[in-house]
This record gives sequence, structure tokens and C-alpha cells, in this order.
Amino acid sequence: MSEIVSAAMIVIGDEILSGRTKDRNIGHLADVLTAIGIDLKEVRIVADEEDAIVEAVNALRARNDYVFTTGGIGPTHDDITADSISAAFGVACWYDDRAYAMLEANYAERGLDFTEARMRMARMPEGATHIDNPISLAPGFRIGNVHVMAGVPAIFQAMLDNVVPTLKGGAKLLSAAVHCPYGEGTIGGPLGEIQKRHPDTIIGSYPKYQDGSFWTELVIRARDRAKLDAATAEVQAMVDAIAVRT
Amino acid sequence: MSEIVSAAMIVIGDEILSGRTKDRNIGHLADVLTAIGIDLKEVRIVADEEDAIVEAVNALRARNDYVFTTGGIGPTHDDITADSISAAFGVACWYDDRAYAMLEANYAERGLDFTEARMRMARMPEGATHIDNPISLAPGFRIGNVHVMAGVPAIFQAMLDNVVPTLKGGAKLLSAAVHCPYGEGTIGGPLGEIQKRHPDTIIGSYPKYQDGSFWTELVIRARDRAKLDAATAEVQAMVDAIAVRT
Repeated sequence: MSEIVSAAMIVIGDEILSGRTKDRNIGHLADVLTAIGIDLKEVRIVADEEDAIVEAVNALRARNDYVFTTGGIGPTHDDITADSISAAFGVACWYDDRAYAMLEANYAERGLDFTEARMRMARMPEGATHIDNPISLAPGFRIGNVHVMAGVPAIFQAMLDNVVPTLKGGAKLLSAAVHCPYGEGTIGGPLGEIQKRHPDTIIGSYPKYQDGSFWTELVIRARDRAKLDAATAEVQAMVDAIAVRT
Repeated sequence: MSEIVSAAMIVIGDEILSGRTKDRNIGHLADVLTAIGIDLKEVRIVADEEDAIVEAVNALRARNDYVFTTGGIGPTHDDITADSISAAFGVACWYDDRAYAMLEANYAERGLDFTEARMRMARMPEGATHIDNPISLAPGFRIGNVHVMAGVPAIFQAMLDNVVPTLKGGAKLLSAAVHCPYGEGTIGGPLGEIQKRHPDTIIGSYPKYQDGSFWTELVIRARDRAKLDAATAEVQAMVDAIAVRT
């Protein structure tokens, strides 16, 4: 059996739940993980509340190989991710020597005060290691299997680029798509039969609605190329057979 | 005290977790709920797996006034939402007479077979009531405080329009935004002090990164207009004071 590597994501931020900011990180992480053979199993968007963050972190880190969080690591009072992750792991949250020195030197160089707010960005759980931030310096961090990153998309993406080489990818889930010009009602029955005959594949049916009519994107996924090809051929033949009949 | 009405959302679909489809429903629901004074407290994106759906539904319906789900109510084998919601409520999932008759008549009128796959769309938990679907007929449903809707954005939005008038809105969370041309490090300290002096408001700080520099959107939220205005005035004064100093 191919090894499966699983992951979960936690998006931390009232601004996403209020609709004021539209998340752009979920789709990016999903794309990146799929590309390296890691299955994103669940995403949670939670408020800037310690209890909510702790609950999500502890539920998801226990049952996934990796957890990725975005948001709440800045210098303001509503940035409570470092404290919440520390609480989830039951460790102290304090200034990290290296992060502190790095930020202190950077602000000195720029002639800016190293305010208490700015110092907050050097705080992380005891035992955490840095995730470098090439854009705005203040690091994310990793503790256990949890990777804590920024919410600003450009910074999140840059941090994730630094994390990816450290991850153990799984057997990549291969996929093939079959365009189906008919609605799901037409193909639902035979498609279910094909799924039953190909238990090691995952056959998904995604209805699309455009200009008043339906079409369907059929996606076949498998970790084995031969199994993928066999199921895909049957799905394609099913669609072709409908075209002949109609 | 103003009454707070809370909600959670469950997005059901492997295609979102794989990155193949980018969700467009979370932001829409967040906007609509905010507009009618309902607090969206948590969102979960889960796979097309019954256990995952049942866990999310039961966790979230117990602690929120409303739960909204999207996805998995079509006619194909991977559409398992009706069964999973039934399992979560411990009731049977069977053909709803009215939905069955409506779909049967519609397919007859269009000269299409009422296939077993199409019949699946009439299945719902015992005791559920319809959520009308003006676009493609197959209804969503409500059971208890859980509203089950389609994943296709146009259909989800149309269904939600039918649900909104049935919801009890809370005291609307009012908000005001203050544009801050400085990064969070500059304002983090004084902003935290303002938050402490205005405990009945929620002051959020959202860093924006553009063209190599940071600015910050400061958002003040409160259910009481006078409290909102008082906190907003202090935040604006804080930003203005920095402008004078620099």
C-alpha cells in the first residue's frame, strides 16, 4: 500500500468570518499539498479566540501528519496565535532569543523604535523553530507537527515555500478529468457502478452550472497509474456511449 | 445586553480540499450573515466522508443557533450529505414524497428518464423541510437548526435567499474602519491600550502588504452605536497623532 500523508489547516481570523476579508490561502495550500502528495483532510476557520484556536489545534494535530495555520502572528493585541499554540501544547510562550535579536537589529538599522508591540513578534512557544519570512522578517514557527504562518497571502506563500522542502510527501494522488456535457442526473447511475468496480480510485462528480444549463466535470483519482487509467477509460466510454444514444 | 445569534458553516467536498475547485460560498455566507446581525463563529471544510460530516454537524449544531452546509446534495454516488445529516440526527434518510413527486413531474415534462440517480435528489432526513431551489428544482432541506444547501454557487446563493427570511437576526454588529498608513509595529502598543479602555468593542488590526510596504486597516466593531463612535474616535486620533509626529 502506498503511504498516505495527511494534513489539516486552521485559518485564524475574525476578518474572514465577518466577510470583510476573503480568504486566499486555503486554495493555495490545497494546490501546493496536492502537488507534493499530501492529502488536505480538513480546514477550519476560527475566530481570534484562544479557546477556539486551542480546540482546533489539538483536535487536528492529533489526527494528521501536519497542521498549517495562517493568521494572528503580528504585533497587535488581537494577534494571539503564539499564545494560543503555546496553550495547546502546554508550554510557555516567551521571547525567542534569535528572533528578538534579529528584529531588534532590523529596527535599529531602520531607525525605528523596537516597541513592545514589535517585540511581540519575537514571542513563540518554548521549543519552536523558525519559519523564515523573507518579506517582512518576523518569523513564523514550527512546534511539533504544527506550522504557524502569516495570514497576509504574499507572506504566507513565501513562508510556505520555506516549509515545503521539510515535508515528507506521500505517494502522489494522480488525477484525470473527463468532461461530461450532461448533468449529474444522466450519469449518476452508471458512474456509481464504475466507482464500485474500481474501489482503489476516488471518482468525483462536480456539477457546473452555466448559462442556464448543467455540465459535469468528472475527476478520477488514484495513487496507482494503471488503476487510474482503467477507471478513466470506463468513465470516458460511459460519456461517449451517451453521446451516441442522444 | 443585546442578543447574540451565532452560526457555523460546513463546506462538504473533496474538490475544495484538493484545490481543484476554489470555494466561493464562504465569503458570500459571511457577508450575508454579517448584514443580518448573525455572527459566523466557525467554518469547517470536510471531505466527502460520512464520519467527517457527522462529527462536524454534531459539534457545530450543539453550540450554534444555526448551521449552514454546502455541497454533496446531487444525484451521484459521492453525494452523501443527506445520508450523513440523517446519521448525525439519528433519523432515517428516505425519499421525501413532495420532492419525489416534483422531480418526477419535472423529468416527465422534459421527456427525461427519472433515473435512480435523479431519484436520489429527493432523499432527505425524516422530518426535514424543503429549501426551494429556483434554479435546478432539486431542493435543499432544513432539519433542526441545520440548513443543507447546494455547493454550486449560483444555486447556493438562490437557496440562501430563501432561507434568510426565516432566520432570527441578532443585534447587528456595527463596524467602522480607520485607514492607517503605518504598519502594525507602529500602532500595536497604543491600539492595545484603546482596546482595554473599550471592552465592549472588538478592535481588529489587519495588515496589508502592497508594493513592498505595509499599511493597516483598523476595524472597530460594536453592537452599540455610541460605544462604536467613542472607540473609533480614539483610534482615529491615535493615527492622526502619529501623522503629526512623523
